[in-house]
Amino acid sequence: VTVNRHIPAIRTTPGLLLAGVVDRRADRAQQTAARLGVPHATRLDDPQLGEFNAVSIGTAPMSHHELTLAALAMGKHVLTEKPYAMTLAEADEMLAAARTASRVLAVIHNFQFARSVAAARRIASSGRHGALRGVIGLQLSNERRRLPVWYKTLPGGLLYDEGPHLVYLVRAFLGDVRVVDAFGSPSPSPDDNTPRLAAARFADGRGGAFGALQMSFAAALSEWQLVVMLERATLVCDIFRDILVTLPDDGRHVPWQIMRTSALSSARHWWGVVTSGTRFLSRRLDYGNDEVFRRFAEAVRTGRSPEGISGRDGREVVAALHAIVGAL
Amino acid sequence: VTVNRHIPAIRTTPGLLLAGVVDRRADRAQQTAARLGVPHATRLDDPQLGEFNAVSIGTAPMSHHELTLAALAMGKHVLTEKPYAMTLAEADEMLAAARTASRVLAVIHNFQFARSVAAARRIASSGRHGALRGVIGLQLSNERRRLPVWYKTLPGGLLYDEGPHLVYLVRAFLGDVRVVDAFGSPSPSPDDNTPRLAAARFADGRGGAFGALQMSFAAALSEWQLVVMLERATLVCDIFRDILVTLPDDGRHVPWQIMRTSALSSARHWWGVVTSGTRFLSRRLDYGNDEVFRRFAEAVRTGRSPEGISGRDGREVVAALHAIVGAL
Repeated sequence: VTVNRHIPAIRTTPGLLLAGVVDRRADRAQQTAARLGVPHATRLDDPQLGEFNAVSIGTAPMSHHELTLAALAMGKHVLTEKPYAMTLAEADEMLAAARTASRVLAVIHNFQFARSVAAARRIASSGRHGALRGVIGLQLSNERRRLPVWYKTLPGGLLYDEGPHLVYLVRAFLGDVRVVDAFGSPSPSPDDNTPRLAAARFADGRGGAFGALQMSFAAALSEWQLVVMLERATLVCDIFRDILVTLPDDGRHVPWQIMRTSALSSARHWWGVVTSGTRFLSRRLDYGNDEVFRRFAEAVRTGRSPEGISGRDGREVVAALHAIVGAL
Repeated sequence: VTVNRHIPAIRTTPGLLLAGVVDRRADRAQQTAARLGVPHATRLDDPQLGEFNAVSIGTAPMSHHELTLAALAMGKHVLTEKPYAMTLAEADEMLAAARTASRVLAVIHNFQFARSVAAARRIASSGRHGALRGVIGLQLSNERRRLPVWYKTLPGGLLYDEGPHLVYLVRAFLGDVRVVDAFGSPSPSPDDNTPRLAAARFADGRGGAFGALQMSFAAALSEWQLVVMLERATLVCDIFRDILVTLPDDGRHVPWQIMRTSALSSARHWWGVVTSGTRFLSRRLDYGNDEVFRRFAEAVRTGRSPEGISGRDGREVVAALHAIVGAL
């Protein structure tokens, strides 16, 4: 994630300059740094790295806390991957350290800025199709997908690594969320703590708008969808393909309205495949990472907390995940 | 539902003959009967109806119990619409009455026999794509759709009228189900007892296969999907359009596998639109009602309980609905 997402975003964000690459494996650090023409090190405090004032952390979740505290103690601003922390205690300690050091601490909650989701947020907040009724995040995950080697050491396994995306996506529409209900079906395998199925509901937001998640980790398919229900339209974000499908009110559900739903779904899906495909091939499909880095750079410049990606946002998502895992 | 579904099915099912039409509104009974050339009445015991030995009940759910008991007391076999009964006590009384009268009592759980779902069941039970991992029923309901006038008098409102479909569909794959978890978000309107959102999980079935529902009644869209997860394939039944989309394992989720999912989804959706559309226009799209009436006729002939549509099946679905509504 560091090489494919962070570094390209750093290199294209005004105000950010790549100072160097740190990896505890020297060969990896050396290889990447050589390609990029920057210094490298195996530790953050290596003087070889020269001057720098911010750190972007793309390591495994269990190291976010330690690395963040170390970077803040050195007076660096920190942007870290999700999940923000392993426990709420870690999250609180990270927030306190950032406050003490007067440094920006932010988390990569990127899909909320992806083109499809950003467009859905604009439509929802415009009020053009009426008020927000609810948001549901639906996820199927295929275990044959390339998975991080450490996922079984997380609370709830893969849920803890993938769940943050759905939680901050629902938050992007509902505002602060609190888990009020959750259930799950455990894995039949004793060596996997990832539930086969998990569902959760958040406390209703403004106007009684509901929020919910449903995730299955037993599918032979990886698909993530965010369904945003407005009074007179339904927005469906295909997260992986970065495609927004806006469906009009299908009213009485008579045949022509059902056909219209089919036609618009297909047409918008394929228009999205073409545009996302073009962006993918020209390496401009970055799933909102550019906006995360832009906001981080602005926060460093202005000292203002970056909206949607602050340490507090990271902590709230971790709180929701622990509430879900705790209820399973 | 009687005129558009029951009567056409009765008229095309070998072993069934339409004996007459009963409606408590005489004008409606007369009108329909005149068109069909059969006797009519406002009561089941009207001698005008002549000889008959079975009754198909398409009235509102709150009358199923009374009409079923009356028909059984007259020695008639009974096929009734879902929801089978309003309470478990009613359901038990209906089952006991059928036993006492030695008559067949069955319920219309039709979508499990629709072409798309029947094909999905054959694929799942063939084992060709590996074992069943789980089944999820997903439903969005638009309140602008033509809704029965009495739905607000049901427990859980529209959930009690539409939920049976998803419950018996999950049962068709998992076998007997028992609700172990449920949550919901109430309607903000004091005069509607339909939840805006409801989710439920069933006890895991054979091999740890899970079953779950998620329904929203706050959408501007009416769509029902059944997602059947097998070890190496995912089956998606579009219930309203009667379309089955079979998606292969998308493995590592690399671009060509993602594109294949897009392509197969579209191709199979549109192939389904064409074939379902053809059947719709030629009035052969009956959503499994033909099979329900065929099984009922066979049960009357053989005296054997009809699989999937017995009174006991109807009772189990009612039990699941009450468990869900009770937990909201």
